[in-house]
Amino acid sequence: MTGGSGTSLSRRRLLRMIGLSAGGTAMYQAMHSLGLAAESSFSEPIRLSAAPKGASVLVLGAGMAGLVAAYELRNAGYQVQVLEYNARAGGRNWSLRGGDRYTGLGEETQECRFDPGLYINPGPWRLPYHHRGMLSYCKRLGVALEPFVQINYNAYVHSQKAFGGKPQRLRAIKADYSGHIAELLAKATQSHALDAEVTADDQATLLESLRFCGALDKNYRFIKGAQSSERRGFERDPGGGLNARPAFSEPVAFSDLLKSGLWAALPFGEMYDMQTTMFQPVGGMGQVGQAFGRELSPLIRYNAKIVEIHQEEQGVSASFEDTGARSRHTVKADWCICTIPLSILGQIPMNVGGPMAKAIAAVPYCTGLKVGLQFKRRFWEEDEQIYGGVTYTDLPIGQISYPSSGFFADGKGVLLGAYIWNMLNSMDFTSMTPAQRVSKAIEYGSQIHPQYRQEFDNGIAVAWHRVPSAMGCFGLWTDATRAEHYDNLCAIDGRIVLAGEHASYLPAWQEGAVTSALDAIDRLHRRALAAAATV
Amino acid sequence: MTGGSGTSLSRRRLLRMIGLSAGGTAMYQAMHSLGLAAESSFSEPIRLSAAPKGASVLVLGAGMAGLVAAYELRNAGYQVQVLEYNARAGGRNWSLRGGDRYTGLGEETQECRFDPGLYINPGPWRLPYHHRGMLSYCKRLGVALEPFVQINYNAYVHSQKAFGGKPQRLRAIKADYSGHIAELLAKATQSHALDAEVTADDQATLLESLRFCGALDKNYRFIKGAQSSERRGFERDPGGGLNARPAFSEPVAFSDLLKSGLWAALPFGEMYDMQTTMFQPVGGMGQVGQAFGRELSPLIRYNAKIVEIHQEEQGVSASFEDTGARSRHTVKADWCICTIPLSILGQIPMNVGGPMAKAIAAVPYCTGLKVGLQFKRRFWEEDEQIYGGVTYTDLPIGQISYPSSGFFADGKGVLLGAYIWNMLNSMDFTSMTPAQRVSKAIEYGSQIHPQYRQEFDNGIAVAWHRVPSAMGCFGLWTDATRAEHYDNLCAIDGRIVLAGEHASYLPAWQEGAVTSALDAIDRLHRRALAAAATV
Repeated sequence: MTGGSGTSLSRRRLLRMIGLSAGGTAMYQAMHSLGLAAESSFSEPIRLSAAPKGASVLVLGAGMAGLVAAYELRNAGYQVQVLEYNARAGGRNWSLRGGDRYTGLGEETQECRFDPGLYINPGPWRLPYHHRGMLSYCKRLGVALEPFVQINYNAYVHSQKAFGGKPQRLRAIKADYSGHIAELLAKATQSHALDAEVTADDQATLLESLRFCGALDKNYRFIKGAQSSERRGFERDPGGGLNARPAFSEPVAFSDLLKSGLWAALPFGEMYDMQTTMFQPVGGMGQVGQAFGRELSPLIRYNAKIVEIHQEEQGVSASFEDTGARSRHTVKADWCICTIPLSILGQIPMNVGGPMAKAIAAVPYCTGLKVGLQFKRRFWEEDEQIYGGVTYTDLPIGQISYPSSGFFADGKGVLLGAYIWNMLNSMDFTSMTPAQRVSKAIEYGSQIHPQYRQEFDNGIAVAWHRVPSAMGCFGLWTDATRAEHYDNLCAIDGRIVLAGEHASYLPAWQEGAVTSALDAIDRLHRRALAAAATV
Repeated sequence: MTGGSGTSLSRRRLLRMIGLSAGGTAMYQAMHSLGLAAESSFSEPIRLSAAPKGASVLVLGAGMAGLVAAYELRNAGYQVQVLEYNARAGGRNWSLRGGDRYTGLGEETQECRFDPGLYINPGPWRLPYHHRGMLSYCKRLGVALEPFVQINYNAYVHSQKAFGGKPQRLRAIKADYSGHIAELLAKATQSHALDAEVTADDQATLLESLRFCGALDKNYRFIKGAQSSERRGFERDPGGGLNARPAFSEPVAFSDLLKSGLWAALPFGEMYDMQTTMFQPVGGMGQVGQAFGRELSPLIRYNAKIVEIHQEEQGVSASFEDTGARSRHTVKADWCICTIPLSILGQIPMNVGGPMAKAIAAVPYCTGLKVGLQFKRRFWEEDEQIYGGVTYTDLPIGQISYPSSGFFADGKGVLLGAYIWNMLNSMDFTSMTPAQRVSKAIEYGSQIHPQYRQEFDNGIAVAWHRVPSAMGCFGLWTDATRAEHYDNLCAIDGRIVLAGEHASYLPAWQEGAVTSALDAIDRLHRRALAAAATV
């Protein structure tokens, strides 16, 4: 759907590779091998020196990379024009709210029917504390941030094949895995199996730490009792007054826990890019794109579908179709920052050299999919005391994410009813109509929350392979493609430089787009200065 | 300072017991052995049937227990009078803001000089997701809640004796402990040391889980590389564009980590009462007491120091001194809910039976202490990317807690510069003047944040043993005192019943006060109905 045979082949290879991985960790491992769990090198706001007099730059795409580039280049004194396919700024930075309409390729138009104040982010939704570029632009643009709850100990981990399909509280599985591990290692220590590895002194401290960190009893056993219940939760919580003594809960047997595969959900909150403290913009991630859009309003032309990019010795021109007026136009500038996703760019004629052209063709795009569901009440909070965070499941929906705003509110609530990375499941959902996707998300989700059917109100589904401006979720690099093509993708070709998450070591993250844009404009600016000096 | 010889003896015993415990885990273990890490049995709002016609109740103390009791009894139709020592409702539920004045016993009056919107909570400051009583009253009273960040992976763990006194990021210590443990257990598994404990099938899954959860490489080693850096953080974060490849960080050697004792900070976020998602009232914990105060305003007499409580067959009377007018008054009612902290109650004449009197004398009070510090800027965010959460240290200040509100704000910021539980340190700080405590908190804290001296603006310090209305932080139970005295403390004595955190299995937590009050009024109400029926 998204390009030539080169990318299709790569995508099929990847699809097969990931589809064949067995077990609950396939998605997660895939994320890793594709370089997803990564971070930013941004530290300080960029300070470009003054632009050469009269120099102009054409920015293609008003996603995060294009917006950052346009903002900084304008501030440095460049004449900046931005062309954007959509009728709004932000690109994949986007929130859907009540009244919004969206039409995927070959799909019926969906109208979002969420209540006022409720939204989903079809694209990025979280800002790690170390994504300093994004955080910095939020601050400079006045976008208010609030904590995003990634890990919730009272949310569930769920497998259709384990514990009779009954969702388990994350706190119980986390405590039990950690406790059983600690008990086993304490036994190994006491039976002298570690004598070659650990000194006698350290063994004593190790045992103390295992008892403490693993919630073991005084005999180094992880068993039903005060220690384990104070991690995994109680059978009956303690209270006040008479008859308020707590009842302890029974840990899960280690063999059952191992076989369940639910341990695969445990490291998420430990990952550098999902650790506390995470943030989200108040009112939805799309607030960032909107704020940039307001700031750069005079520079951006919306509804502009790029049909050709052409560079000559003295400048760059881009031809575009105005998708409203159906008219064709051409604009010119001295330089061009092109942030169009490679999935689209690969289809647009552009005279760059072989290395960049091959790099553009070498990166397939991920098939992500999200479903937002509005319910008549926030039953996950009222009935189950789940406030934000994520339930992980091996059902095709992948996860259910509960809102990190509006806690304890009466009235309707919106949750993320599916966030699908697994390529087979994602392809499957992408092939459905939007209404079918919503219906499937309800069907699967009701295995975790029986309230789903009773409380469902309405939903909306975005499959990134069918989003006209992106045709995919983000660029999928492998170690091999990165070694061969990455530097060629990023290098300036004549008067054109590319930027975006695809031109970064932080694929899928907005911070990749930001840091990529900053690097690209820094290099382009130096080239522009040098060119001006030699004229 | 707080009572008779019985309580002093117990306190000295406890002090010795805790003071003698070696190592970084003493405080934490003490919290546990004293039953701190505990939770609530509240599930639904209480629904009392109608009060007997004309029945009256005297509530002593307008802390959380007294406020909940007064609120529910009034709603059931009782004539309720509340007597409160302070000039405000809430008791230990209390926030200090700019302009507030506070005078501890034998101390100079402190005036809080924080900027508008900034505060500290000298008492309770957090609401776990399962403290459903507190959450329910917040909702019913319109007190807005926001997430409280307890665990922040980018905050520090610190020991004067480890790593040259240099603070370590929690994420690094957490990743390294977990990784080294996993590597050791993988080795033990592969060397067949677990063959008697774990089946061959489970061993294969165990190894897979250890590699995945412990961030081991493909050879089950926890070493410098992508896996470990994606937990502990990078030497140089990945970025976008050219030259943006990440540099991996070097894990800490396991022996150094064990000897450092820093592993003792790791389980905090795993504890049932500190797990995500926690909350705090917007604007400070004191918002709850204030909201109750507004709701019950006509019923509460402030500045009322109870000097005697007397019951007869037909009713209860309480004599009090109006601390403003210096006048003495006596009020009467059919029944009495007494929520005065035992540290104070033990000094007030009250004709109850021996079992309750002995129980009152058996519970010593903890010597907690907090210091709030205002700085000229939020350097912990700006310089160190620490957004909320806690730095744990073996310095006498115990911890530094960063605010969970006002993230990214310009201007001044207030953090909790000391939260002292350790009894020796707490006694030491309590004996200082408020100004000395603030000065000491700056001195110690600057070992962790060198910016302290440059950025310090002003501070305020509350030592709970010198708070006139509490004379201690919370009641310290042991298994032995609980077995002997707890039920006697909670049982109705004639027309008097006690309530408060001290009458619960959740000591120190407001939820203990709430559930204790609900249990007390439920029993008292039934007795009142029975008494009315027999008249």
